[in-house]
Amino acid sequence: MDNKGDKYLKAIDFNCTKINDKLWKKRIETIRDVTIPGCFKRCEETGRISNFHKAAKKIEGGFEGVYFNDSDVYKIIEGVGYVLSQVEDRELEEYTDDLIHTIVDAQQKDGYLNTYFTLVKNEEKWTDMERHEDYCIGHLIEAAISYYKATGKDRLLKAVIRAVDEFYTEMITGGRNWVPGHQEIELALIKLYDETKDRKYLEFSKWLLEQRGHGHGVGENLWGVEKWGAVYAQDEKPIKEMTDISGHAVRAMYMYCAMADLLITDGNYDYLHALVKLWDSTVLRNMYLTGGIGSSKENEGFTRDYDLPNDTAYCETCASVGMVMWNHRMNLIFGESKYADIMERSIYNGALSGMGEQGDVYFYVNPLESDGTHHREPWFDVSCCPTQITRFVPSIGQYMYAVDEDNIYVNLFIKSDSRFNFASDNIRITQSTDYPWDGRVLINIEQSIEEEFNINLRCPSWCKDFQLMINGRPFKDYYVEKGYIKIYRIWEKSTQIILNMDMETEIVKPHPRVLNNKGKVALMRGPLVYCFESVDQIDYDKLTISGSEEFKLEFDEELVGGIVKISLYEKDEFKAMAVPYYAWDNRKAGKMKVWVDEAK
Amino acid sequence: MDNKGDKYLKAIDFNCTKINDKLWKKRIETIRDVTIPGCFKRCEETGRISNFHKAAKKIEGGFEGVYFNDSDVYKIIEGVGYVLSQVEDRELEEYTDDLIHTIVDAQQKDGYLNTYFTLVKNEEKWTDMERHEDYCIGHLIEAAISYYKATGKDRLLKAVIRAVDEFYTEMITGGRNWVPGHQEIELALIKLYDETKDRKYLEFSKWLLEQRGHGHGVGENLWGVEKWGAVYAQDEKPIKEMTDISGHAVRAMYMYCAMADLLITDGNYDYLHALVKLWDSTVLRNMYLTGGIGSSKENEGFTRDYDLPNDTAYCETCASVGMVMWNHRMNLIFGESKYADIMERSIYNGALSGMGEQGDVYFYVNPLESDGTHHREPWFDVSCCPTQITRFVPSIGQYMYAVDEDNIYVNLFIKSDSRFNFASDNIRITQSTDYPWDGRVLINIEQSIEEEFNINLRCPSWCKDFQLMINGRPFKDYYVEKGYIKIYRIWEKSTQIILNMDMETEIVKPHPRVLNNKGKVALMRGPLVYCFESVDQIDYDKLTISGSEEFKLEFDEELVGGIVKISLYEKDEFKAMAVPYYAWDNRKAGKMKVWVDEAK
Repeated sequence: MDNKGDKYLKAIDFNCTKINDKLWKKRIETIRDVTIPGCFKRCEETGRISNFHKAAKKIEGGFEGVYFNDSDVYKIIEGVGYVLSQVEDRELEEYTDDLIHTIVDAQQKDGYLNTYFTLVKNEEKWTDMERHEDYCIGHLIEAAISYYKATGKDRLLKAVIRAVDEFYTEMITGGRNWVPGHQEIELALIKLYDETKDRKYLEFSKWLLEQRGHGHGVGENLWGVEKWGAVYAQDEKPIKEMTDISGHAVRAMYMYCAMADLLITDGNYDYLHALVKLWDSTVLRNMYLTGGIGSSKENEGFTRDYDLPNDTAYCETCASVGMVMWNHRMNLIFGESKYADIMERSIYNGALSGMGEQGDVYFYVNPLESDGTHHREPWFDVSCCPTQITRFVPSIGQYMYAVDEDNIYVNLFIKSDSRFNFASDNIRITQSTDYPWDGRVLINIEQSIEEEFNINLRCPSWCKDFQLMINGRPFKDYYVEKGYIKIYRIWEKSTQIILNMDMETEIVKPHPRVLNNKGKVALMRGPLVYCFESVDQIDYDKLTISGSEEFKLEFDEELVGGIVKISLYEKDEFKAMAVPYYAWDNRKAGKMKVWVDEAK
Repeated sequence: MDNKGDKYLKAIDFNCTKINDKLWKKRIETIRDVTIPGCFKRCEETGRISNFHKAAKKIEGGFEGVYFNDSDVYKIIEGVGYVLSQVEDRELEEYTDDLIHTIVDAQQKDGYLNTYFTLVKNEEKWTDMERHEDYCIGHLIEAAISYYKATGKDRLLKAVIRAVDEFYTEMITGGRNWVPGHQEIELALIKLYDETKDRKYLEFSKWLLEQRGHGHGVGENLWGVEKWGAVYAQDEKPIKEMTDISGHAVRAMYMYCAMADLLITDGNYDYLHALVKLWDSTVLRNMYLTGGIGSSKENEGFTRDYDLPNDTAYCETCASVGMVMWNHRMNLIFGESKYADIMERSIYNGALSGMGEQGDVYFYVNPLESDGTHHREPWFDVSCCPTQITRFVPSIGQYMYAVDEDNIYVNLFIKSDSRFNFASDNIRITQSTDYPWDGRVLINIEQSIEEEFNINLRCPSWCKDFQLMINGRPFKDYYVEKGYIKIYRIWEKSTQIILNMDMETEIVKPHPRVLNNKGKVALMRGPLVYCFESVDQIDYDKLTISGSEEFKLEFDEELVGGIVKISLYEKDEFKAMAVPYYAWDNRKAGKMKVWVDEAK
């Protein structure tokens, strides 16, 4: 019954895990103490919150900002839910409760909820597929579920069900066609199904996905930019037929998530072929070393295979978070570690870099090279990335474990304490580790009865060798399958596993088809991509790597919240210093590069 | 454009490659000189050929043998085609031409062709789905295409088209339902489409596959064996919904081939989910170390996951050949080496063992352990395996290469000379190697113009390290993707690649869930599973492996046609000797085992 064919993995929810480590716990606290208050303040200052007040009072014309700004508020609330599952904060909870009141007050009688239309052109509701009404509801669904799971409070959840039902009635009862201009509600509807078990939401999600590629969308002239065509919002052909990633990166990611969710949740495998082919297209031909995607600023998306410039890389923070979400789901479908490898790559590099150490500045764009002019900013007119980080960082626990009938999958290594139902028992798994700085992970498993099942430890693709101990003794009776170190045995009521992964500093060669990386190399250690900031170098511009360097590692508690810095020595002389890519631009402003010339 | 999403690989046909090595070339000559004449002789002696003569003359009642015996004759002819593409043989070709005349003479006016029904119960044609009428036509299609490709002679091809059309008319025009009792024609019809480009055959194949799982088949009472149920012939549910392998192994393999072919040939991905899940089920939970499948004699197939007894292993030769065929196709779909790894495993172990070195005796059943009573036999009442070997061995060239727009995939390493069209050019690839005895492969590539493309060398899963040279110089600029060593460059008119794969003797641990292998280990070297025959041991019954043995390798030209034997020494004392599994039972009759007790 090991991983039987018709089962997919089920992720263990965020609220089952308490994160206790230095890196994530600290960032979650920063999110609570700095990021969320800061983002709410910006929302207040920019009218994002007063829009709801005005909408509640039907003050027409008073709308401030961009038409999708409601979504930022929702994404912060989603983040609040995750944060409250980790750390208590009465004040934050009260503020959010009040805000939820305000939002619910802004809902129209029939359930419709969007401050832009309510305030600007109420009579034009559901007439313009580009205007993100559905996108905003999608984020509202995610916020409502997160908040409900964390606090048990369902006011927002009840409201969003009414909002979804209004949209459903408009479309389905109304016999309409509708292609969301920015995918998001599709995956949110499946979450709503998971929560309510009402198949209507599942069917609605499928219906929305199936609307694509039949000329129902805004077509060739999205926002008047003719050259983008329907491909920009992935509407150029039915989803089933897609094989190559294109268009806007975040839109693509959210859509792929929903396609995968339909399979995991409902066994609908219509999109499996597309998912498999799109994954190859994305990961093998259109992804940066950092797990970032989308090389072009122009369409915030894709150009052609292997076109991956470093300095003009777009790599939107939201797209990296999208990669985390999609690869997580791919792992649940296939139970294969290669998807979790990419998930981890995007987590620790392309996504984590989106936030400054102090939690008050953000990258929208995450290039792999900078001439010194690119810096995090405190806010943007389009502020999807700050609010994306707000909801992403405290939700990290949801990516750690997955299960099926008789398998537990350990996908991330983070010091933490998790409790969840497994088999016929409650199980508690604690991890103790300094990962990602060290490859040694101590895992304790506790349960009330002895049981026979598999524990599957992800063997990361960067790990070339490992040692395994169980209850203090070397354990050799594992097998490796689909990239997991699988241990099948009768587990005692309490068991200690030690997984010791060799974590070497590696010189990475570029893909030979990425022309701008020819003659360059990069540094990685474990899941982390390293970069060279000019502030750390003797001569940044002349820096080369010969391959004969010695690497000296040092955990520096003072540096960017505590990181392992890598010093390169050649013939006993200091040559250069590298820091994790995610940590760059946290000190003196300067140049940065991931790919460095190889010494000739 | 590297491996673009909507493209599948295309296999290079058998008639593009001349095999020149010691192992395969010698066996192909044995097939020509001993096996084919021997099989034809058996067919003459057992009435298989006179059935055609009698059918031509409508001598009712004179049928000899089993109702599916026509298929053996067809499979030998298919083998003749492959052999003639490798080595000339005027006499064999003349004999086969005559035989084809006889077969075509036996065809009824309306195209119907089956000697059993023609001679025994002509009025009951197409009334009994268990009686293999379609199965025989399937093998006739494959025979006709092989013979046509090798000789250019199309008499049999024309006849089989008439036979297929008659079946088609009976079913489709007749508005019938039909579930083949033994899958085979489904994959053959796709070959016929490939040859004729008549979509009717593709549609017919799909129609037959879609007939399954709707209660149209013989159902619960196949051949009166109620307990097997519809699952025996994979008719228990629609194919799309299948996730776990079950039933009769050869039937399953042939069906999976057709499912994959529809995707490769026509982009029909309805069965992709089933293929992926069935592959995991087969390879991870129901396959022997030898690449053999089907653990139970009772149903010639599957029981439950991890039930893999060694002594009573069924592992029909035909099923291993089926594994080769199916995994070949899976590799074409995904361009992933793991499928070619399994293909190679079945080729060199479970399939190759089916034939004795002299080419005149065959295993139907390929257990991994024998008490000394199991031996190859010259023929069987049901002689599918000898005729399977006859067509499999000389077709080996078709598994070596695959291409897409700008990729050449090298899947097998065999000394050989191939010419085929690639990109805009004719290309010639020669391999020089002592594989499977040595991991060094010299590959020469010749073309008339310089061109830029990828050459992808399979990096076998057993290979832990390798060195690569191009034109005499170490080459480091490769990348590894999907298990292939990928070289992207402008290829000169003539290039020499040397791939040197470390080929160590490995002690293999069993899967911990296969209970009967607990405490045992096995030996592998390169693609070859080794076994211990009692004839080579000091004390067969007391043999254990401690893991501290030294392995001494010796190529013994005299032993079973030339093999590398592995002698195990412990503390400088000879302890045991292992030979390739495929080579066992070619000398003094005795005991044999693959899995050996580990010394405590």
